[in-house]
Amino acid sequence: MENAMKPESEFKRCDRRFHPEDMAVEAGGVKIGAGHFAMIAGPCSVESEEQIVSVAKAVKAAGAQLLRGGAFKPRTSPYDFAGLKAEGLALLKLARQETGLPVVSELMNINDLPLFADIDVIQIGARNMQNFDLLRELGRADRPILLKRGLANTLRELLMSAEYIMASGNERVILCERGIRTFSDCTRYTLDLSAVPMLHELTQLPVIVDPSHATGIARLVPPMALAAAACGADGLIVEVHNDPDNALCDGAQSLRPEDFAALAEKVRAVREIVTCAP
Amino acid sequence: MENAMKPESEFKRCDRRFHPEDMAVEAGGVKIGAGHFAMIAGPCSVESEEQIVSVAKAVKAAGAQLLRGGAFKPRTSPYDFAGLKAEGLALLKLARQETGLPVVSELMNINDLPLFADIDVIQIGARNMQNFDLLRELGRADRPILLKRGLANTLRELLMSAEYIMASGNERVILCERGIRTFSDCTRYTLDLSAVPMLHELTQLPVIVDPSHATGIARLVPPMALAAAACGADGLIVEVHNDPDNALCDGAQSLRPEDFAALAEKVRAVREIVTCAP
Amino acid sequence: MENAMKPESEFKRCDRRFHPEDMAVEAGGVKIGAGHFAMIAGPCSVESEEQIVSVAKAVKAAGAQLLRGGAFKPRTSPYDFAGLKAEGLALLKLARQETGLPVVSELMNINDLPLFADIDVIQIGARNMQNFDLLRELGRADRPILLKRGLANTLRELLMSAEYIMASGNERVILCERGIRTFSDCTRYTLDLSAVPMLHELTQLPVIVDPSHATGIARLVPPMALAAAACGADGLIVEVHNDPDNALCDGAQSLRPEDFAALAEKVRAVREIVTCAP
Amino acid sequence: MENAMKPESEFKRCDRRFHPEDMAVEAGGVKIGAGHFAMIAGPCSVESEEQIVSVAKAVKAAGAQLLRGGAFKPRTSPYDFAGLKAEGLALLKLARQETGLPVVSELMNINDLPLFADIDVIQIGARNMQNFDLLRELGRADRPILLKRGLANTLRELLMSAEYIMASGNERVILCERGIRTFSDCTRYTLDLSAVPMLHELTQLPVIVDPSHATGIARLVPPMALAAAACGADGLIVEVHNDPDNALCDGAQSLRPEDFAALAEKVRAVREIVTCAP
Repeated sequence: MENAMKPESEFKRCDRRFHPEDMAVEAGGVKIGAGHFAMIAGPCSVESEEQIVSVAKAVKAAGAQLLRGGAFKPRTSPYDFAGLKAEGLALLKLARQETGLPVVSELMNINDLPLFADIDVIQIGARNMQNFDLLRELGRADRPILLKRGLANTLRELLMSAEYIMASGNERVILCERGIRTFSDCTRYTLDLSAVPMLHELTQLPVIVDPSHATGIARLVPPMALAAAACGADGLIVEVHNDPDNALCDGAQSLRPEDFAALAEKVRAVREIVTCAP
Repeated sequence: MENAMKPESEFKRCDRRFHPEDMAVEAGGVKIGAGHFAMIAGPCSVESEEQIVSVAKAVKAAGAQLLRGGAFKPRTSPYDFAGLKAEGLALLKLARQETGLPVVSELMNINDLPLFADIDVIQIGARNMQNFDLLRELGRADRPILLKRGLANTLRELLMSAEYIMASGNERVILCERGIRTFSDCTRYTLDLSAVPMLHELTQLPVIVDPSHATGIARLVPPMALAAAACGADGLIVEVHNDPDNALCDGAQSLRPEDFAALAEKVRAVREIVTCAP
Repeated sequence: MENAMKPESEFKRCDRRFHPEDMAVEAGGVKIGAGHFAMIAGPCSVESEEQIVSVAKAVKAAGAQLLRGGAFKPRTSPYDFAGLKAEGLALLKLARQETGLPVVSELMNINDLPLFADIDVIQIGARNMQNFDLLRELGRADRPILLKRGLANTLRELLMSAEYIMASGNERVILCERGIRTFSDCTRYTLDLSAVPMLHELTQLPVIVDPSHATGIARLVPPMALAAAACGADGLIVEVHNDPDNALCDGAQSLRPEDFAALAEKVRAVREIVTCAP
Repeated sequence: MENAMKPESEFKRCDRRFHPEDMAVEAGGVKIGAGHFAMIAGPCSVESEEQIVSVAKAVKAAGAQLLRGGAFKPRTSPYDFAGLKAEGLALLKLARQETGLPVVSELMNINDLPLFADIDVIQIGARNMQNFDLLRELGRADRPILLKRGLANTLRELLMSAEYIMASGNERVILCERGIRTFSDCTRYTLDLSAVPMLHELTQLPVIVDPSHATGIARLVPPMALAAAACGADGLIVEVHNDPDNALCDGAQSLRPEDFAALAEKVRAVREIVTCAP
């Protein structure tokens, strides 16, 4: 088992022993962590003005605090749709203007950082969790970083990657469990929810969960989102699409807005139970 | 991904498509599944009359419906304590007499079956999930079988093992997720909670979760038990010991009775939320 | 990493530190280990007299030292062919009579042990590697035990299972790497060949490799068998069938006799290189 | 299992079905693949002129065809030695001048590409295997790319990453198996040698093996290097250091020059056997 209590920590800036208080990360006016629970929702990819604005309004009405939308998409195949890029970011900001929701989007290439100047939260995907130069650069950004756990990375490695960002000066890191690779073949990845309470022991940083990428199956998103809330996650990032059947990307794992609304209500109720004193 | 919809099912007796209604398994007067949630609690090993009776009373008071206690213990090393065997079963039945709780205990060797004549639920451990001769024999037993998923087995393989039991005539099978082996090193195993909603899609059988063996760390048992309830488990099997520091086996993952009581209350509250109509 | 040098060994009977000399296991007059390399070959299942005798003659001609043939087959599904049982063992002994090759067959149920009275090597399959009662009983058998590594077991666990057998009095244990479960989906299991030199560090027991079950693909058996010989395995167990396309079990991973003969020759040549002084 | 025969390939530029002939990649005058076997050897990190030149001479004398040496090092911790960077590349080129060996070094950040103008082979590490923007840029480089398999990537994903490079115009891709993450804890990673013959079925590209990073243990490097040669690898990349005990990085997995020389000789002998007609 991971030895959380080695005499000298290798991730001292995010080591709970030196930072006993839970840390809240502020993102576009919304707090995540230290008692503040945040729902981040939106489509896998920004596809059009109509799409992103309508989803943004729907998730806001359902109680989401932040809007997610991919503009630069990591795709296994070079021939797949890779996002609307700069245009996607512009549409995302338009949706923010319409709804007031701060926005989250994934950065894959450090040279694209100027395009993200006005994006509230920069997401680093699982495949870039150990792109160390990128992490170091983001340590100089003045924005919160949503750092996803890699497909085959231990919690210690995740914290070391957070340390890269923090060591360069940016303390606003949100960790995200999004499923790991195992032999299990009934879901896309295996959601490792034990990582949530274990990370809370090891670090002061907030921890959120992505049940959409982890399972790859929309029907499994509500139960796994509720489970994440029940084991103490500080937030969720959930894919919501107004028309999953025709999504350009990951439709099979996207909730419809009405299903997200029903889920959000239950999540709040579960969270109330688990956070009240015993 | 597992192809749940192959034209011809290989596990037809436990295939949801042929058995659309949730099945409740009755165990010593207690129902599990089909809306009935059961808490199974007790020590890893039966150690003494005083120990098992006091734990039995405590878990009953906390709301447990069944008592667990190991008499035959699978141990990695031939030199470790392997349980009190027949005497352990006798003490377990004594605790049942004192509290009225039906009892669950693990069978490892088919030749020990006569000793289990009066045990309410026979547990098959992860290491025996594909002990096919044992499964076939249990198909002739008139008792419910609690079948744990193997460390490296897919859900299809788990259902095939249930099918072995059912094909021999015993339909009362309770499935149990107890953690799988992955690269992740912060917990003993990786609890694969997505298996719960996925099994509910694939089969009519009840599905419970063992957060104690999965995590191996008592502090993680409450959050993971709540998560299991939140994603739709039909029950929990939790290790509770009156004196974890001096337990002969698995003390590090055992809850104290008072912590179990606090947990049980929250579990019931979470379950109420997730089972009410949206 | 596994701490091979803990001050007190938990597998002392098979711990290299207490038994610095390589051990040869004698099986029906054939030695395995300590410089003696053995090829075990034959069909997955014994199907008929004609089949087993013709395969036995072919593998003998190709240089195999032992004949394998399954009579009791562990099958994931209760509806699959489970072997000819006692009749299969009788046919195997007939093939031994015809060729002089000692025979290896898998035992799944301790109650079948009397049927194996005249079988030269008893194989314990991966799924029974931690069937501790079975292991303990085999410690009282006067036959060598071929112990396969479980799908998700560490080397320390494998050695602890060997220790179960040895602690009951039977020192003749042959270890077998046969592939582990990982996320990798291009072969049936992932053959962990590093286990071979690592086991040779940890224990004096001989170590053989099963490339047929590990890969599940006949085309991959020759390269992986050569690789096993190259990294120091003490033997191979290879599936050979006279008519793979019509095999009742595992035809897709079986070599034809002529391919096995070509392989055996190269294996011997590779082994000569790796065992000569540098 | 991976469906290698989907009707429409997603990695058409590196799909064996469209490119039936083995491809040799030429790197600084040395050919790899299509019958040409290459040994790449050198230290994990370039540390000083004296170190890299002496190692270069030693590995050349032992028969290595290319020199490896890290100048930009991916390190899990932000506080670890990260390489000599530009100075390291300069020293590597000096060693090339002294020995004539073409040089291989890892690129982590696309913005460093100009520094690699005169490096013969650009290595992409496991952690960057799905850094898609980097791959796309390297498609415009006029140098061979040594692409390492990610810790948790399937062969199909590896080929898709090769396709990214090739789709941008650079066909000179060398694939490298370097160990995957599994539950197995006796070696640093689990070397998946079955990937070698399987990749040879799926693609025309050359496939080499890195036994040093895979095992993390110098004693295991020779047996696993021999195994790689035995199962058909087109080359090896091996860490060699003149003073492993004082290496700044990965000393525990580095061979001494004399051990590498002994290994190289056996590798050549094994390769001769496995490549001659049956």
